[in-house]
Amino acid sequence: MAGSTMGHMFRVTTWGESHGPAVGCVIDGCPPGLELDASVVQRQLDRRKPGQAKSSTTRREADVCEILSGVFEGRTTGTPISILVWNKDARSGAYDDIKDLFRPGHGDLSYQARYGIRDWRGGGRASARETIGRVAAGAVAGQLLFNNGIEVRAFTLALGGVKADKLDMEVVSANPYGCPDSEAALAMDARVEEVRKTGDSIGGLVELWIDGLPAGLGDPVFDKLDGDLASAMMGIGAVKGVEIGAGFAVTDLKGSESNDAIAPEGFLSNNSGGILAGISSGARVVLRLAVKPIPSITIPQQTVDIHGAPATIVTRGRHDVSAIPRILPVAEAMAKLVMADHLLRWRAIQ
Amino acid sequence: MAGSTMGHMFRVTTWGESHGPAVGCVIDGCPPGLELDASVVQRQLDRRKPGQAKSSTTRREADVCEILSGVFEGRTTGTPISILVWNKDARSGAYDDIKDLFRPGHGDLSYQARYGIRDWRGGGRASARETIGRVAAGAVAGQLLFNNGIEVRAFTLALGGVKADKLDMEVVSANPYGCPDSEAALAMDARVEEVRKTGDSIGGLVELWIDGLPAGLGDPVFDKLDGDLASAMMGIGAVKGVEIGAGFAVTDLKGSESNDAIAPEGFLSNNSGGILAGISSGARVVLRLAVKPIPSITIPQQTVDIHGAPATIVTRGRHDVSAIPRILPVAEAMAKLVMADHLLRWRAIQ
Amino acid sequence: MAGSTMGHMFRVTTWGESHGPAVGCVIDGCPPGLELDASVVQRQLDRRKPGQAKSSTTRREADVCEILSGVFEGRTTGTPISILVWNKDARSGAYDDIKDLFRPGHGDLSYQARYGIRDWRGGGRASARETIGRVAAGAVAGQLLFNNGIEVRAFTLALGGVKADKLDMEVVSANPYGCPDSEAALAMDARVEEVRKTGDSIGGLVELWIDGLPAGLGDPVFDKLDGDLASAMMGIGAVKGVEIGAGFAVTDLKGSESNDAIAPEGFLSNNSGGILAGISSGARVVLRLAVKPIPSITIPQQTVDIHGAPATIVTRGRHDVSAIPRILPVAEAMAKLVMADHLLRWRAIQ
Amino acid sequence: MAGSTMGHMFRVTTWGESHGPAVGCVIDGCPPGLELDASVVQRQLDRRKPGQAKSSTTRREADVCEILSGVFEGRTTGTPISILVWNKDARSGAYDDIKDLFRPGHGDLSYQARYGIRDWRGGGRASARETIGRVAAGAVAGQLLFNNGIEVRAFTLALGGVKADKLDMEVVSANPYGCPDSEAALAMDARVEEVRKTGDSIGGLVELWIDGLPAGLGDPVFDKLDGDLASAMMGIGAVKGVEIGAGFAVTDLKGSESNDAIAPEGFLSNNSGGILAGISSGARVVLRLAVKPIPSITIPQQTVDIHGAPATIVTRGRHDVSAIPRILPVAEAMAKLVMADHLLRWRAIQ
Repeated sequence: MAGSTMGHMFRVTTWGESHGPAVGCVIDGCPPGLELDASVVQRQLDRRKPGQAKSSTTRREADVCEILSGVFEGRTTGTPISILVWNKDARSGAYDDIKDLFRPGHGDLSYQARYGIRDWRGGGRASARETIGRVAAGAVAGQLLFNNGIEVRAFTLALGGVKADKLDMEVVSANPYGCPDSEAALAMDARVEEVRKTGDSIGGLVELWIDGLPAGLGDPVFDKLDGDLASAMMGIGAVKGVEIGAGFAVTDLKGSESNDAIAPEGFLSNNSGGILAGISSGARVVLRLAVKPIPSITIPQQTVDIHGAPATIVTRGRHDVSAIPRILPVAEAMAKLVMADHLLRWRAIQ
Repeated sequence: MAGSTMGHMFRVTTWGESHGPAVGCVIDGCPPGLELDASVVQRQLDRRKPGQAKSSTTRREADVCEILSGVFEGRTTGTPISILVWNKDARSGAYDDIKDLFRPGHGDLSYQARYGIRDWRGGGRASARETIGRVAAGAVAGQLLFNNGIEVRAFTLALGGVKADKLDMEVVSANPYGCPDSEAALAMDARVEEVRKTGDSIGGLVELWIDGLPAGLGDPVFDKLDGDLASAMMGIGAVKGVEIGAGFAVTDLKGSESNDAIAPEGFLSNNSGGILAGISSGARVVLRLAVKPIPSITIPQQTVDIHGAPATIVTRGRHDVSAIPRILPVAEAMAKLVMADHLLRWRAIQ
Repeated sequence: MAGSTMGHMFRVTTWGESHGPAVGCVIDGCPPGLELDASVVQRQLDRRKPGQAKSSTTRREADVCEILSGVFEGRTTGTPISILVWNKDARSGAYDDIKDLFRPGHGDLSYQARYGIRDWRGGGRASARETIGRVAAGAVAGQLLFNNGIEVRAFTLALGGVKADKLDMEVVSANPYGCPDSEAALAMDARVEEVRKTGDSIGGLVELWIDGLPAGLGDPVFDKLDGDLASAMMGIGAVKGVEIGAGFAVTDLKGSESNDAIAPEGFLSNNSGGILAGISSGARVVLRLAVKPIPSITIPQQTVDIHGAPATIVTRGRHDVSAIPRILPVAEAMAKLVMADHLLRWRAIQ
Repeated sequence: MAGSTMGHMFRVTTWGESHGPAVGCVIDGCPPGLELDASVVQRQLDRRKPGQAKSSTTRREADVCEILSGVFEGRTTGTPISILVWNKDARSGAYDDIKDLFRPGHGDLSYQARYGIRDWRGGGRASARETIGRVAAGAVAGQLLFNNGIEVRAFTLALGGVKADKLDMEVVSANPYGCPDSEAALAMDARVEEVRKTGDSIGGLVELWIDGLPAGLGDPVFDKLDGDLASAMMGIGAVKGVEIGAGFAVTDLKGSESNDAIAPEGFLSNNSGGILAGISSGARVVLRLAVKPIPSITIPQQTVDIHGAPATIVTRGRHDVSAIPRILPVAEAMAKLVMADHLLRWRAIQ
């Protein structure tokens, strides 16, 4: 409730600041008997590591995880799983000159208002580095989902105005932008290069699919599957919009168009995005996320200092040009955490 | 956790089915000393009553609320507030012929999958009638927010393709569609009439403002203010998309465009929608909701029965042409519940 | 969290004050498909009704329950079950002369300190009448437990110094004190009569058994089965002590005496009270509760008024001489709620 | 809910097994601005270290804590505080010969029943070593309580049949048993020595005081202060009974004896133990805990193996003769965690 825990049955708490000693998570409620070792977690962490696409920061961190509890002889024991990653390459000196300034688009001002104190080094708790804990936990949830035939995939639909025209899942992992359209991926790369030179940043659009979900997951009326997914996705730093199925397009549809007709073999369309009245219908769950540009840019910006006096800020340090593609494993992890939680809740009433 | 409770400090549980004896809510954690009587709640319930705009069902219910606990001599006592509304005009016979069919766009199929049993009369628990409990609770939350200078307003930006061109808050309550553009409201009325004749239904777009919110409300990293608002809004039956501030428009912006510059007198734009890193910034909170068309239409639709056999369904009964405008007080209530909860959480750490 | 909700998966919220319009509860998370109608609940409510033993108040209330939601065609649907009992025989005038006084042993002073306002009529929320909601919810939990072969029984070990020497379960329901020793029950009756004449009240000792519980229920390390039971029992108004298995007797035992040896056919003793490391062992769960005398007595007592001035108070109204035997169905209900919750949690990880 | 988290506003999750890489905790919801560094935590951890009284194991662990997050420049920031202690002196080989046996009085059998897998080395998660996380978190809670003038003290009333006759708080920290009676402490020492030679273990009685608590803390009706304290104390491995105020003695009292009369200067007795109707009254909170003998003894015991076959077990390894005195800082920590949580909840409604 203090904000760093999500889930009820499959319950995850993340902790850590960008430039503190370490970041990590504790997963409580993971069923016993799942195969798990550090390599399973490391594989997902490696996907969110910087430096893989041109859009990412060049800060190099090994980000090697250690599992400190809850696993015995290669299997989960049902007790809390604590996972830790040390912060190694933290050049906090880079932030000295902005420690009294509020960076536009960042949480500096709002954290200061809430707590009256903040770790200003690299965004502190509001840093994207906090998502290491989420991705690690998502990797554990992934083991549970895999055993139940549930698959979660996120990919890039648009970046800096460049849109994917094809949905070829085969090529998603073959380009650094996680784009289902190889040509668009090349254009994204050029766009990133172009924007980087100007010191600016760009946003984009991410789509996420959940397949293999049985019908019947989700609790009415406040813990709906779509409500929990919306919360999870909007809880990712850069996300400013979430839509499910037809999403915002429904505003111009008629009921006869937006209703998904049902045949013995299944739904004939998927405007509902796999969720009816907050409960999975058995169809693919489809989400789209609006990803804002990284707020850290090297172009001078107008702001105030912590005393309210006007100032100009130029963000230095190493920063991504876009949260895409590193946001993809984070979005997947969040979806996995929601699914794992609802899977366990569902079992309880069977 | 079983789904019918929201909030942690200001905690609301709703209960009841469309055609059961009654619907209602219990509010636990409301601070003592707030002025409250049934008329405060009734005023909000009257706003969501059917039959006020042409788009609404002609089912007539007095929907008179009774406060059964938690109030003494006109003030809240800090103990649970139980509010009840009897179901009176429930013609469940209207549903007899579809009790074995899954209505497209409704929760029939997913509820059946989840529970193996469902109250098929009028949508049961998934009926919009459940929102009576939410609106009643929101009225109580409203008393707390009012005392703290916080105001929540929802209005209609678009309905069935008709868009508001003006944002004149003065006229919102002067037309039955809650539209800030009087001319658009007239066009909406015509559009509704036209669609009603075809037996179809329409969707629309709702905007919601929260004003007077101090900076500093919201918990990182999973109970973010935007995350909780997204969950609350997506938890409204007809909502398929939620965006905050610039929303989906951020996908095409650059950081230098989307960052809100800060001056001593405040933010110079509001692309963030009043929330930075999940915590209120002091600027107006702005949300937009994509509202799908009411799934109940009188046009024949393809479906299956509970045994999986193909069938054709024609929804009878009395139904709205659009969830708009009755969704407006529901959206406001949900926002109020989230704000009341975060206000109390924030007090705890002051 | 605001205090009126217990359980996570099988989640119960009670509401209502002694002299308000009604009292009741909402049960969320009850599995679908359980047989349930009002008579199942009424049977338990009748057990806690006043006027059955000499020790009870002569306030006569029908206490007829109504189930308002969550049940369809005689079975639970998985949605919230709302149960209501109207307050009918509430002579609040009897409390007028003590509305500004703090009754010793009651919650008057502490409620005033917490909320700055209180419904002083008949104890308000702190009245034993609130337990109607608990007993009603416990009856629903009982249906779930019955289907799983779990039985909960409470009985009176001692009352006003009179102790049961036999544990004859056959006679527990055959005497008004729920005592497993018929002769002791007669002596208790005499003791109650004697104390009533003096205007005083008496305490006693209750034992509770849970049988049929499989090994493996309970969560380490904070939601232990014994921790949750202790909380549930201590949460009953009159209870000042809870012990499990050998309880306080362990303080004088050695490990070789207190450890329960294990044989292929089961444990050879039950000092652990059926719980090891917070998890059920498969043996009978055994609890004992210390029940304080009813604080309402007609003997004048020294107190202060709400302004802090000294005063003398004589409690009028109708009051029990002891919380026993009416506390028995309450204790059973609380144990059933804890068991139902842990049963569902356990299922989630199977 | 999965069991390793306690508290709502001041929320603590512990993790770790006896012979895993480390143990620790995460504290979420700690207010910002509290002075905190590792030495504050270390001081409490040192109190629960083995080897200080004759009753303790000779396993030597530095148990040096590291604070990994949530503290910046010597103050809490309001974000999660992660604290870790490495396991260094873990001779797990000592457990090899009992890995297939269920030790009487331990959680081996019940953990196996629940999870179907267990880390059998040194008790795994059920080890007393888990309490390091609780004590560390309690130290943080202690900073909050200290700033609010609240003091928590636990001491030993009895050990192995030796009872304290005096309550001299001055000497509690002057003897290794935390006993308020110096002579009794000497007798306890002799008793421990005597029992150790027989390979057996002993139980005892602990009392706990909470002073400085304002009236008004605690939530009715399920999150009562006494209910939460009972749960917290019963959640300590060795505790089999909890009583508050007069406790089990109330069973023989009359109302005129057990009610605490109220005078302008305060209560004239404290049979209620500082709690009325679940809410603090302003008087000292008084609890007593029944502590069972350590189940690990070197005397041969009858048991079964994991296949159900009869066996004899002799526990080797290093073990305490009694959970006393090391349980004292654990009991204090648990009480502090409950108080910190209720303090924050109380603030929310002020």
